[in-house]
Amino acid sequence: MFKKVLIANRGEIARRVIRTCKRLNILTVAVYSEADAESLHVKDADEAYCVGKPPVVQSYLNIERILEIAKESGADAVHPGYGLLSENADFAKRCTEAGLVFIGPSATVIASMGSKLEARKTMKAAGVPIVEGVEAPVKDVTEAVEIASRLGYPIMLKASAGGGGIGMQLVTDAEELAKAFEGNQKRAQSFFGDGTMYMERFIANPHHVEVQIIADSKGNVVPLFERECSIQRRNQKVVEEAPSPFISEETRARMLEASVQAAKHIGYVNAGTIEYLVDAEQNFYFLEMNTRLQVEHPVTEEITKLDLVEEQLKVAAGQSLSFTRDSIDKQGHAIEVRIYAENPTTFFPSPGKITELVLPIGEGIRHECGVEAGTTVTPFYDPMISKLIVWGDTRTIACQRLIQALKEYKIEGIQTNIPMLLKTVSHEQFLQGHTTTKFVEEFYLPQLTETK
Amino acid sequence: MFKKVLIANRGEIARRVIRTCKRLNILTVAVYSEADAESLHVKDADEAYCVGKPPVVQSYLNIERILEIAKESGADAVHPGYGLLSENADFAKRCTEAGLVFIGPSATVIASMGSKLEARKTMKAAGVPIVEGVEAPVKDVTEAVEIASRLGYPIMLKASAGGGGIGMQLVTDAEELAKAFEGNQKRAQSFFGDGTMYMERFIANPHHVEVQIIADSKGNVVPLFERECSIQRRNQKVVEEAPSPFISEETRARMLEASVQAAKHIGYVNAGTIEYLVDAEQNFYFLEMNTRLQVEHPVTEEITKLDLVEEQLKVAAGQSLSFTRDSIDKQGHAIEVRIYAENPTTFFPSPGKITELVLPIGEGIRHECGVEAGTTVTPFYDPMISKLIVWGDTRTIACQRLIQALKEYKIEGIQTNIPMLLKTVSHEQFLQGHTTTKFVEEFYLPQLTETK
Repeated sequence: MFKKVLIANRGEIARRVIRTCKRLNILTVAVYSEADAESLHVKDADEAYCVGKPPVVQSYLNIERILEIAKESGADAVHPGYGLLSENADFAKRCTEAGLVFIGPSATVIASMGSKLEARKTMKAAGVPIVEGVEAPVKDVTEAVEIASRLGYPIMLKASAGGGGIGMQLVTDAEELAKAFEGNQKRAQSFFGDGTMYMERFIANPHHVEVQIIADSKGNVVPLFERECSIQRRNQKVVEEAPSPFISEETRARMLEASVQAAKHIGYVNAGTIEYLVDAEQNFYFLEMNTRLQVEHPVTEEITKLDLVEEQLKVAAGQSLSFTRDSIDKQGHAIEVRIYAENPTTFFPSPGKITELVLPIGEGIRHECGVEAGTTVTPFYDPMISKLIVWGDTRTIACQRLIQALKEYKIEGIQTNIPMLLKTVSHEQFLQGHTTTKFVEEFYLPQLTETK
Repeated sequence: MFKKVLIANRGEIARRVIRTCKRLNILTVAVYSEADAESLHVKDADEAYCVGKPPVVQSYLNIERILEIAKESGADAVHPGYGLLSENADFAKRCTEAGLVFIGPSATVIASMGSKLEARKTMKAAGVPIVEGVEAPVKDVTEAVEIASRLGYPIMLKASAGGGGIGMQLVTDAEELAKAFEGNQKRAQSFFGDGTMYMERFIANPHHVEVQIIADSKGNVVPLFERECSIQRRNQKVVEEAPSPFISEETRARMLEASVQAAKHIGYVNAGTIEYLVDAEQNFYFLEMNTRLQVEHPVTEEITKLDLVEEQLKVAAGQSLSFTRDSIDKQGHAIEVRIYAENPTTFFPSPGKITELVLPIGEGIRHECGVEAGTTVTPFYDPMISKLIVWGDTRTIACQRLIQALKEYKIEGIQTNIPMLLKTVSHEQFLQGHTTTKFVEEFYLPQLTETK
């Protein structure tokens, strides 16, 4: 096992990784930007090094400096957390070249899943269902219009290097497509340095369901069930649960099987997530693969009772998985809500100083939290400050516990999305499991107008 | 199900009961002494009524006033929590007479288990192993010495109405017995209004292991495994875990079976705990039965995933248990530590104002807590302020999480026993599962002298 792990991240996920390392008697190295010098992840770690000034490009994305710190501190492995450098193939490669174990899959695998068009082709070859669309870059507007007339409108126009909704647009006719094509191509080029565009048939109001897998370097792949992550705002998940209240046992079995096939096909090692869109008829289609730990991994931990960070460390250290698909089972239902320092109506970040923080307690309640009373939330980084995770023997119990816990959650000094979360998870549609990607638009936002 | 439940208790257990009631949409009524007017259980409940001035006799033990409040508020049931009136047969009877459901067993059963000598006889008749001793009150010193010479020294002299070590003494010869008899008889008479004495053979350095049972009014009794509660200071448990790291599977099976027999024999209904002493050879002997929820019930909840308060409410409302002995299983290992506002060396209470409170977070961590930053811990009531419960897939993982969580537990303004707990659960003997009732004396106290 590793002796010292550098955590190339901040906030709650850095603390999460440090916690498991400590438990396994692994020393930890934190990195922090000048804006985060007083952060809890800095206090938690055995050693901490400044990685630069905000914003993110000069600090947590500074590969050179992070590798320097790894060398200086004598770390033997790097955990990238999520976001930041976690899906940066170059970073994984540079770590390996520097003699560090990158806790995640190989640079090649990261790169192959980073290109959405490439991933689409790979998954099709693996036998995973994909949305009807093109297999090669769409050259220009003329070709786009021609393909669209064959696929049928509405169409999703997508950037191959895209993410977070950038370079992506829904178009309903040839005229709209023609207008959208060049703009999105330019945006993708300037954001990602790659203007490659492709197109898919549009799936209306789908569920977003993802399968967690864990794979060791001996070829063992175990699916750890699925997560329903349909409730999103600004293209970001805010409520995640496991298992999905929507899919049938039969769909679950097919999705888990497809995910194992996909992971085996690409020789995947470590924890990974295969995201799918699921339509009203429970057809599922590959969306993308996340080659790292997800923000929402705790709901999987709660229903499987595994420590996913521990499993990541073990397989990265070359150990075999200590369980098989048959030996692992799920129990009960878990829901996570992401708590953001943001305006609950506009969803704009709301930085400031937290003057009071009292977390709800009791049976079935878990917290992942990067802040405490006295912490200043700066505008430089992601405004997610904590996650509240509840477990219940049934989804109903989990919902009841979640509503109560959100009511008891006391945070003063900044605005948070807690009122939005509470309205969402108390909504009759949510309680009945009618969670689709349009939930916020269909059920949350109209409530705001009604109240006015 | 009940519409409104009065919780005749305070602190963390009142909050614990209120939480489950809220989840089940049952209204709650809190009672509070003048010293507790600002307490969290008062804020949590739907209604709250002052029950009198401190100390306890004028407030939480004031049966008349509590019944008045129940009537005034329109409560239909009373949850007694633990301690205070929870094992007061008269209170249970008065509740029933007032048309309130007492959430616990009948007054007759409470009374029969309240008399230790009576309980001893009853359990013997039920086929439960008891320590060799007398079946009838010991009249006087002459008879005591005569019986002792037959049983063999050392001998435990005990008050039938006793509890908390009062009226109880270990004697090693006839002279000591003669001296002890009258003094303890008098103490028992003055404390409990009943000087009845009895005697048992002394079990050296035993483990304290207790079996949780739950029984409905239809005659179904399900044992919910055992708890190891051997680590005590001042005759009070401070560390409790489930399952016991000491007993064998075979001993476990026999203890669960004996406990079911015991409960059936006395027609027990609701949650109850049968406490045993277990000697080095895994012989177990009935110690006493607690006819209420225990402080340490969360460790059972963590390994069974049941909500024991919900089960109590259900069976009190006449519902059948929704599970059987075969359908219930345990998973992993849970440990609870009781956090007291006390000096960690002398174990004397240390009241005062809590100026800061930051609870540890993360996977496998649960809190039950009666205080927050700003709370003043008064000298009037039990100084236990919170409980920290950890779960792990193995005992080792649970211990690692517990040690880390105790290190992160931040409480300022008052002294607590956290340093004592940390020394205890970090001790090699504890980690190896060598927990006996002499643990604090043998392994904790000597460490203090060494450090000086």
